[in-house]
Amino acid sequence: MPSTPIFSQSTRVMGLVLCTVALLFAHAYAQADPLPSWHEGLAKQSIITFVDATTNQASPNYVPPEARIATFDNDGTLWTEQPLYAQLLFALDRVKVLAPQHPEWKNQEPFASLLKGDVKAALAGGAKSMEEIVMATHAGMTTDEFTRLVQDWLATAKHPKTGRPYTEMVYQPILELLAYLRANGFKTFIVSGGGIEFMRPWTERVYGIPPEQVIGSSIKTKFELREGKPALVRLAELNFIDDKDGKPVGINQHIGRRPIAAFGNSDGDRQMLEYTTGGDGARLAMLVLHDDATREVAYGPANGLPATQVGAFTQALYDEATQQGWTVISMKHDWTHVFPFEQP
Amino acid sequence: MPSTPIFSQSTRVMGLVLCTVALLFAHAYAQADPLPSWHEGLAKQSIITFVDATTNQASPNYVPPEARIATFDNDGTLWTEQPLYAQLLFALDRVKVLAPQHPEWKNQEPFASLLKGDVKAALAGGAKSMEEIVMATHAGMTTDEFTRLVQDWLATAKHPKTGRPYTEMVYQPILELLAYLRANGFKTFIVSGGGIEFMRPWTERVYGIPPEQVIGSSIKTKFELREGKPALVRLAELNFIDDKDGKPVGINQHIGRRPIAAFGNSDGDRQMLEYTTGGDGARLAMLVLHDDATREVAYGPANGLPATQVGAFTQALYDEATQQGWTVISMKHDWTHVFPFEQP
Repeated sequence: MPSTPIFSQSTRVMGLVLCTVALLFAHAYAQADPLPSWHEGLAKQSIITFVDATTNQASPNYVPPEARIATFDNDGTLWTEQPLYAQLLFALDRVKVLAPQHPEWKNQEPFASLLKGDVKAALAGGAKSMEEIVMATHAGMTTDEFTRLVQDWLATAKHPKTGRPYTEMVYQPILELLAYLRANGFKTFIVSGGGIEFMRPWTERVYGIPPEQVIGSSIKTKFELREGKPALVRLAELNFIDDKDGKPVGINQHIGRRPIAAFGNSDGDRQMLEYTTGGDGARLAMLVLHDDATREVAYGPANGLPATQVGAFTQALYDEATQQGWTVISMKHDWTHVFPFEQP
Repeated sequence: MPSTPIFSQSTRVMGLVLCTVALLFAHAYAQADPLPSWHEGLAKQSIITFVDATTNQASPNYVPPEARIATFDNDGTLWTEQPLYAQLLFALDRVKVLAPQHPEWKNQEPFASLLKGDVKAALAGGAKSMEEIVMATHAGMTTDEFTRLVQDWLATAKHPKTGRPYTEMVYQPILELLAYLRANGFKTFIVSGGGIEFMRPWTERVYGIPPEQVIGSSIKTKFELREGKPALVRLAELNFIDDKDGKPVGINQHIGRRPIAAFGNSDGDRQMLEYTTGGDGARLAMLVLHDDATREVAYGPANGLPATQVGAFTQALYDEATQQGWTVISMKHDWTHVFPFEQP
């Protein structure tokens, strides 16, 4: 059969135009910046270099998709931890709600100070006071009931400085990093000192991280029938503290593989970063330094920044980061935006 | 432009033929039996009905993909547990390997009996003897070292009856069920009384279940530097028993959602099935009854089947299954093949 033109000249021109548009679009797409809220610089470049090295099959540091595990601290890394951990503010609000059922709290610390509005005095007892507050407010109900308490609180509670819901006080550059890693076959996990059941009700919606990829501290639970229905009841007994030395333990317990990338912001993340970078091949370890008093809070005490009540990034951690080749992210210099609501 | 024929008659005929073949293939594919090793019957039908009900968006019992959680017991549900749990046989082999370093074992139970080859006497002490054997063989090394011990053992150990590697003593119909559920958007988890670190080295290869979707019993680990490298060392201290009441607790700890489908085979799975079916909407709960002395082992003691040293399916569990509407799978009557190596 002789070759026969099947398109008119005008159709062919239209085809050419569409083709060009498609190619330009594809090119633009390929070139699109996956981390638009990051200034060009060492931090951004170290992320992109690492992802290229581990996902390019020709690279000597190629990692198969199933081993692309990335772990993120939550408080101070994914969302703000100042002036206090959101979970602690939730607990303080719960103390007020529960106070009428506990007349004895009026004369019993840390509750007495709390009910007078003196948070600083209430927390003067340190970890012991915090544990008492957590046990009084986080135990005694089923896991389903606790989930609803967290959801209800988050729906109305406002950050004391910005007046915004806590779930909006998340870091836009880290949301982009999560999406970029996932688009490149990484599985993203939260590894937080915070309560596992406090995070799970909202991490999928806010971070795209499902409950089964959330690791955190926990109290014990007990299986029993409640009103004839099988339920898990939360007990006033510590189960696991997912902080410092506990982070690698929690990672192994839940994931069963060593991560190849880890992100934190405080001394509580040191062992997670050590464990992550202790494996072979390309590794990425990053720490967010909150040095931006204008857009969030500047605190350390590394680099002479002021210490705050929670979330210490000490000079010792800063020095270890330098020595180990971990990347310190400067909130002030590396991020064009901090929170999503600042977006143009 | 006038319409112009662009294909010769013969090309058009060829096109028609290819089209027909493609359509037939598509039809055959859509009709392909996802569970070919299952006889037609109640068990197979209950699986298909459940999957249809939970994945069809028009169904009142539709479940979004992220909530399609299915949990599987391992010993006796995914692979054989007779004549003894594979992990126990691994531990017995480790006792022999380690015996020269422990001359005291010659006069110390349960090791003395074991080294004389009298497994029954060694296990006469029940859970306490088993725990002593596990601690003596599963602790004291790093998690990476333990993984290699498991891999090396599985590469050479043979099932005493069939002479096949344990990883071939898996149930073909359950492998098909796993694949069918995953093809329908389910996330499949192992929830086993067995050791979490004993299963993780091979579950991805054998079942397609990655380490982070394996839940099991565990001993404590400790983060420390070994020869300057960060590692997790396994301690001779129980952390968690993922059996009976522990299964719903382990599920909540690792997954953070209530499963909508659960599969087991013994009294150790009762609470997992209760917890799973205690939620709203369509639920699927199934128990494998090993009633096939020809192709595997017939044991209960439900239905008058003989009791064995491990893996009891009691009459009380059988009665609860009947009462609750859980499906009992008869290995003898519901499965056309038991093991993959029986495939035609």
